[in-house]
Amino acid sequence: MTVNELIRKKRDGAALSPDELRYIVDGFVQGLIPEYQMSSFLMATFFRGMSVEETSTFTRLMLHSGEVIDLSGIPGVKVDKHSTGGVGDKISLPLAPIVAACGVPVPMISGHGLGHTGGTLDKLESIPGFTTSLSIAEYKKVIAEVGVVMIGQTKEIAPADKKMYALRDVTATVECIPLIAGSIMSKKLAEGSDALVLDVKTGRGAFMPTYERSLELATALVGIGNSFGKETIGFITDMNQPLGMMIGNWLEVVESVECLRGKNVSDIMELTYVLGGAMVMLGKKASSLKEGMERCNEVVKNGKAYEKLLQLVKRQGGDTSFIEHPEKYPQSKYSQKINCPQSGFVTAIDSLELGFTGIALGAGRTRVDDVIDPKAGIVLTKKVGDAVNAGDTVAILYTDNKNAIESSAKRIEKAFAIGPAKPKPSPLIISQVDKNGVKPFKI
Amino acid sequence: MTVNELIRKKRDGAALSPDELRYIVDGFVQGLIPEYQMSSFLMATFFRGMSVEETSTFTRLMLHSGEVIDLSGIPGVKVDKHSTGGVGDKISLPLAPIVAACGVPVPMISGHGLGHTGGTLDKLESIPGFTTSLSIAEYKKVIAEVGVVMIGQTKEIAPADKKMYALRDVTATVECIPLIAGSIMSKKLAEGSDALVLDVKTGRGAFMPTYERSLELATALVGIGNSFGKETIGFITDMNQPLGMMIGNWLEVVESVECLRGKNVSDIMELTYVLGGAMVMLGKKASSLKEGMERCNEVVKNGKAYEKLLQLVKRQGGDTSFIEHPEKYPQSKYSQKINCPQSGFVTAIDSLELGFTGIALGAGRTRVDDVIDPKAGIVLTKKVGDAVNAGDTVAILYTDNKNAIESSAKRIEKAFAIGPAKPKPSPLIISQVDKNGVKPFKI
Repeated sequence: MTVNELIRKKRDGAALSPDELRYIVDGFVQGLIPEYQMSSFLMATFFRGMSVEETSTFTRLMLHSGEVIDLSGIPGVKVDKHSTGGVGDKISLPLAPIVAACGVPVPMISGHGLGHTGGTLDKLESIPGFTTSLSIAEYKKVIAEVGVVMIGQTKEIAPADKKMYALRDVTATVECIPLIAGSIMSKKLAEGSDALVLDVKTGRGAFMPTYERSLELATALVGIGNSFGKETIGFITDMNQPLGMMIGNWLEVVESVECLRGKNVSDIMELTYVLGGAMVMLGKKASSLKEGMERCNEVVKNGKAYEKLLQLVKRQGGDTSFIEHPEKYPQSKYSQKINCPQSGFVTAIDSLELGFTGIALGAGRTRVDDVIDPKAGIVLTKKVGDAVNAGDTVAILYTDNKNAIESSAKRIEKAFAIGPAKPKPSPLIISQVDKNGVKPFKI
Repeated sequence: MTVNELIRKKRDGAALSPDELRYIVDGFVQGLIPEYQMSSFLMATFFRGMSVEETSTFTRLMLHSGEVIDLSGIPGVKVDKHSTGGVGDKISLPLAPIVAACGVPVPMISGHGLGHTGGTLDKLESIPGFTTSLSIAEYKKVIAEVGVVMIGQTKEIAPADKKMYALRDVTATVECIPLIAGSIMSKKLAEGSDALVLDVKTGRGAFMPTYERSLELATALVGIGNSFGKETIGFITDMNQPLGMMIGNWLEVVESVECLRGKNVSDIMELTYVLGGAMVMLGKKASSLKEGMERCNEVVKNGKAYEKLLQLVKRQGGDTSFIEHPEKYPQSKYSQKINCPQSGFVTAIDSLELGFTGIALGAGRTRVDDVIDPKAGIVLTKKVGDAVNAGDTVAILYTDNKNAIESSAKRIEKAFAIGPAKPKPSPLIISQVDKNGVKPFKI
């Protein structure tokens, strides 16, 4: 068996055996297979895909390239959520404390922002003092004590994925469903949860712009999860407009805190309750999705979810006074209102464009070594379906970078499409994918 | 412009501009683009192909990565031939002296054996004293003095191709028509000829096993040649059985010499006269293919072609006494007759299998540093269409490697298919491809 033969086999459309995949993944991690052969294999995989068995084997090899955390000592069914990434997608922030407050332990390992999307890690790190770099021992302690823990990927978790992702990033082999699925799931399976809820975004602001591709990804992810004995439910959700009203790291923390304090930002809470309901159900604290959603609603109403957030922030070193009094937080040097040039209805908000504009304002990175401005971002004052009059403010931008204001304001103005008629509402949660297949979402 | 963007562009099926291709090829040659990005680009090209314009630009970039030899000081229209490689394909050996004897200068840069096929260079090097490593200055001198020169690729010729071929060889990106075409033509365009005849093999012993792929390659090669202002004619020829009766380096020299001395090995001379006729026509020493073929036939009959061979061998340091008295050459330690187990007709001879068996006997390399045994090989005593009786000898193998005899004899026996009926003859020269397109071959 030579690498060249295996590349050729994949290139010509055949499936590789587990031994053949092991030869490639292990050889690459150990430095026996050079990057120029690996990148050629990855490109062949881009074109030929992988079978269900290959994707599962590939994920297992990446998973076992590093440490697999054992949380069997923690009582209860541990459940985590993963989102494929969107704009204004701060769902993890209200969701994790809500589910933990329902009695389901939530061990969560998150990432930094990627491309035009924000990352949970960057949002958490905007809280003064909050640390996302815990050792695995400390990670286990926090979940045992608080019932929820939120950290970043450690070097012990799936090193094969880290090495392979770096290569994919520079060889145009990122957008490949089995490789994406293996990358996501090898990390999620390593963190010690027993079950998993997935939020697979679709539309303009998602990495998978079409419903078909999102469904393909959701099916691959759910298939892998279940093949590893972790019950997995996926939801395909709309990312054609940003989630909630705020985009930017600290801004999204503030909006999440407001939601936990009872404010009903409708799309955020709709999605949080569905994902949370599924997690509570998988965590055996409810017998149906509907009942799980009711549990989640209760812990928001009675303040237990908010208390859980404060407990988590404190335990991971964060200053809870900023959570309790967000007005204490430093303000951006500059802000500017973006007004609507015409009357009518908001028919679309280009979330991809707003994601990139947020980065230009300082809310994200364009290079690995860029420093994020946690205050920077965009607050929307109108969303799709809202009526507007010419001159109404539709959004406000915040930044410390004076040079970014003018062009960003223009981009935001253009991101709002205004039409004469109120658009038909489209569902936020489109479909559900689980071991029984795909079905339109219905509570 | 980043390499990643250009790989993505090719991956997604778009054509690259000349500037974009230059960025990649020049960057790779200069070491600015790492091999892992180049191999990913090559695999994307394998799947997406190249447009006619891209292939032409790509060839030009490879050509101008090194020296382009100027033979404008040599009078006459210089014409060369290239074959995509076959088994028993010694055509260059009788062909070059024949065409030179007709007054058309033949500057020929050849390669070593590749895969299961033999290489002209290895055959020439089996002649004691013959050197194929001439400087470019010496190359020009020999063509001026003798009218024909036969050397190997020098380091000055198309270094981009050399570097890229080494990478393709280990990343399963060899079998890609625009890359093959660019590789062949960048070298052929560098050697200083004014026109080109191409022998594109098809069938079991060829690199392109199907007629469609061979036609695709022939069309690409002819297109490139003509786009560079070098009139190019291609012939698609059958490689389902070996050419002639002998396979192996010195054995093929002997068979070539016999042909130049008037022996009519029918398939060798049929192909030699057609390719030679086309070369003489392109060299303006005949007004039609038919007339060119007659010229070639004359110089064999009157001995001028044989004289030209002796002159060439002598000028490049070879000992002509071995050409004049081949029986002087050392003999293989072992020989073995392969007999036919049944009566009937030879219906097929597996040339791919005989090519590999020849290598096992010592006639070729399986690794770059293998040393060739020039005496080793296979002499066929029967060809497709011949009647055989059980016990008749169909071939004789020659080797110094005792361990290779038994398995090789079995492989050779199995390579002969025997049937009850004489097979219908199939044409050796199938079609002709030139600037006017493709047509079935007819003199």
